[in-house]
Amino acid sequence: MNPTAAILIIGDEILSGRTREANAHHLAGELTRVGIDLKEIRVVPDDQAAIVDALNALRSAYTHVFTSGGIGPTHDDITADAVAAAFGVPIGIREDAATILRAMYARRGVTPNASQMRMARVPEGARLIENVLSGAPGFSVGNVHVMAGVPSIFREMVAALLPGLEHGRPRVVCEVRFEVPEGTIAAPLSALAADFPDLQMGSYPFHAEGIRGTNIVIKGYDPARVDAAFARLEEEVPRD
Amino acid sequence: MNPTAAILIIGDEILSGRTREANAHHLAGELTRVGIDLKEIRVVPDDQAAIVDALNALRSAYTHVFTSGGIGPTHDDITADAVAAAFGVPIGIREDAATILRAMYARRGVTPNASQMRMARVPEGARLIENVLSGAPGFSVGNVHVMAGVPSIFREMVAALLPGLEHGRPRVVCEVRFEVPEGTIAAPLSALAADFPDLQMGSYPFHAEGIRGTNIVIKGYDPARVDAAFARLEEEVPRD
Repeated sequence: MNPTAAILIIGDEILSGRTREANAHHLAGELTRVGIDLKEIRVVPDDQAAIVDALNALRSAYTHVFTSGGIGPTHDDITADAVAAAFGVPIGIREDAATILRAMYARRGVTPNASQMRMARVPEGARLIENVLSGAPGFSVGNVHVMAGVPSIFREMVAALLPGLEHGRPRVVCEVRFEVPEGTIAAPLSALAADFPDLQMGSYPFHAEGIRGTNIVIKGYDPARVDAAFARLEEEVPRD
Repeated sequence: MNPTAAILIIGDEILSGRTREANAHHLAGELTRVGIDLKEIRVVPDDQAAIVDALNALRSAYTHVFTSGGIGPTHDDITADAVAAAFGVPIGIREDAATILRAMYARRGVTPNASQMRMARVPEGARLIENVLSGAPGFSVGNVHVMAGVPSIFREMVAALLPGLEHGRPRVVCEVRFEVPEGTIAAPLSALAADFPDLQMGSYPFHAEGIRGTNIVIKGYDPARVDAAFARLEEEVPRD
């Protein structure tokens, strides 16, 4: 069994439609690549009770929870406090995180103020996640991995974090374009799914340049099985 | 109090990273426009137990639940069955939906097969949601509104559905660009938030063309209060 995961996106700006969320899509692809099975994504507002409830539901259900957003210097950045509350541990400025922050600001010729030093507050017992772009670290507590919402920083934190997690068996994902409507391919695909219970199959209709077609995606751990399934589907799909 | 809402996205293809989800962002903006407060977004796989659990959690917590995905003709399209199971009602082909489907296929010169007619299956007691693009309707059961995953069809269904729902009081959302780092604006913004508890304030740092700046978003029901808050922030933010 592969490890499982959920992504928790924290931010009013996603729920109001101001910002188009991009981090979940990036991490979803990375998790697929290393064999960690993403089972759920949630988006919640900048509200401590909502964050704590989601954290507790997700961290008990999955191997890992990855969060994005709410770890900056302002009053609405409450993710670190919510994680501390969810785990019932204290939170405060940590010296190694403070040292990283002061060094980063020193390189810009600035002495950090109290708001900026808030970004060195982490729950007790956390492991830091490196932020090569802007210094302010992410952190992991138990199976919860807390990362920035700014997409460039989120990506660097994912790159720093994933190699240290236990990987699973990546699935082979193959996609083939069929130039027949989804309704025509549905019956043979359904029969195929019944005969290949070890594979996952999805169909995605498209309508472009006058063609009603269907992209078929088949996933599985054994490439030979995926090939065999596509071979049978090619034989059985009626052509116009 | 405004009506509240959650969006439930159903689809393995989002969780595997194959597809970048777009419908939640569109609907989030539309809901903000009509004064329905979006409180949560979830993405779950094409798995009946996962869909039923999410539906039951969300429909009891919010005024409305909007779903996207899983209502096509193939074996992995299980949303309609999951909604029927969540509400404990039977599901079957409905004559008015079947008539719409047959008419749509007739215009293409096609007689629909059994897979295609699956798209006329709706839970007992549902109200249909019109699909002007491809015929196959969405539907509402209780406070759950079930729509297609294909973005163009999703948008048309949202346009057909929203005018019939009770609207709330839309919030005014204003955004101002400050050319100071987020850490510099954090303390005055925090004091402002304490003095304007009726407004929601968010800060979104950017780093572009050599400028470290911050976009400030303030939301509220009274435009005069939003203006007053920005006027005070303009006065109080230290300039370099």
